[in-house]
Amino acid sequence: MEPYKHRVHYYETDKMGCVHHSNYIRWMEEARVDFLERSGIGFPILEARGIYSPVVGVECRYRRPTFFDDEIRVAVGVESYSGIRFRFTYEMTNAAGTVVATGASEHCFTDTSGRPISLKKLHPDLDEILSASLEKKD
Amino acid sequence: MEPYKHRVHYYETDKMGCVHHSNYIRWMEEARVDFLERSGIGFPILEARGIYSPVVGVECRYRRPTFFDDEIRVAVGVESYSGIRFRFTYEMTNAAGTVVATGASEHCFTDTSGRPISLKKLHPDLDEILSASLEKKD
Amino acid sequence: MEPYKHRVHYYETDKMGCVHHSNYIRWMEEARVDFLERSGIGFPILEARGIYSPVVGVECRYRRPTFFDDEIRVAVGVESYSGIRFRFTYEMTNAAGTVVATGASEHCFTDTSGRPISLKKLHPDLDEILSASLEKKD
Amino acid sequence: MEPYKHRVHYYETDKMGCVHHSNYIRWMEEARVDFLERSGIGFPILEARGIYSPVVGVECRYRRPTFFDDEIRVAVGVESYSGIRFRFTYEMTNAAGTVVATGASEHCFTDTSGRPISLKKLHPDLDEILSASLEKKD
Repeated sequence: MEPYKHRVHYYETDKMGCVHHSNYIRWMEEARVDFLERSGIGFPILEARGIYSPVVGVECRYRRPTFFDDEIRVAVGVESYSGIRFRFTYEMTNAAGTVVATGASEHCFTDTSGRPISLKKLHPDLDEILSASLEKKD
Repeated sequence: MEPYKHRVHYYETDKMGCVHHSNYIRWMEEARVDFLERSGIGFPILEARGIYSPVVGVECRYRRPTFFDDEIRVAVGVESYSGIRFRFTYEMTNAAGTVVATGASEHCFTDTSGRPISLKKLHPDLDEILSASLEKKD
Repeated sequence: MEPYKHRVHYYETDKMGCVHHSNYIRWMEEARVDFLERSGIGFPILEARGIYSPVVGVECRYRRPTFFDDEIRVAVGVESYSGIRFRFTYEMTNAAGTVVATGASEHCFTDTSGRPISLKKLHPDLDEILSASLEKKD
Repeated sequence: MEPYKHRVHYYETDKMGCVHHSNYIRWMEEARVDFLERSGIGFPILEARGIYSPVVGVECRYRRPTFFDDEIRVAVGVESYSGIRFRFTYEMTNAAGTVVATGASEHCFTDTSGRPISLKKLHPDLDEILSASLEKKD
């Protein structure tokens, strides 16, 4: 799948002159939303079925600074998926093709009241899509 | 009422070296939430009664830049209140007492489905508090 | 000029279920940056010449709520330009063509030390571009 | 050292009704800035000496959701410090004393041009403070 593209906004920079580190966490979300949508398991589908997928954990390693107006590409991979939890990885590169950051996020599925659910059991069609994404990674 | 205090965070600055202008809109919200709470009409009370108070309009004039770690004081005034709408004004000063920005925000009241309601008619006790705030201003 | 497009991010929503009002101020900046760049007076050009264009004032009227994943179009107009200051207007519409918000921002020009400068006097080529944008509006 | 306190702002929530996960990364920064300042190694001191301490990596585990108006306490610990790099840990608890999130951040030191420097060699007084913070942890 084509990487997600994010053009760096002025308001994402800080007084050090480059992008504030918290924004990469948001870019990971943007890329994840885009990835799921293009996989046929977009947020509208999830929310129509009353499924939330809260973030259980997140991590990011910053390798090179990024700057206002840079075009960042975020490649998303499904590292693991158990039917109950999934873990996404992210590789962010700038226009020169240099890796500027790598990250990961872990998620579970809950109903609208926040109780964990098994996608595998309750939504086998969506489970199939995520399982397939996992296989594609290899 | 004592002004609300906001210590400027690093992530609120931008590459120009000072605070990004969008953050003042957020400080106005912080100060408004604090003002309403101290007036006895806090968000928990509003939300318990199913009242939203969406922002209808906002404006801000930037007079002096502000910087990381500055302590900003935000004085809130109730400029007008009609039972249906209200308009708050904000004066932001830095530690030296210099006015760094002035702003205003307008709000209405809605039920949880987004339909406008009259606070005056449906919640006379809250109406009284806001009316009194208005008088205090003079 | 084609309106700037912004896809609403999940992190731009708040607990009311729609977009937090402070984000529109940021979309106005995104659209302004894009407008200036396509006009041939992009931030890289400004910054290469040591020109800042800080925001002097900003305002926004919220007409309809906007939601996660909405595609917002932001049309930018140059309402006034004096060689020293300029005022941009913004009309934001959703995919259905409904106006969701209107706004404006005022800016001056400064050197890197924050002192106001006249674009007209010091950078006549850029002055010409902004003057032309103003005329195009009518 | 007393934990840093952060009152949750309305604009930090998202449409799921609780705080957006990216904000915890910002709270960690707020708590770190406060910790360093109270340790006698605040950002004004660092910047006066031309020292930056960029974030090399960050991670966060989300254990319980947090909500608008919650008062979050962020306890900071210095997990490791080598004279060149340091790693901070964070434990965030709500008013009920429940751990809502844990996190960590890694940092190096650079000069203003972004080149890594050794605090141990160039700023032994600051090195001593961070070393002492490390010892206090045990």
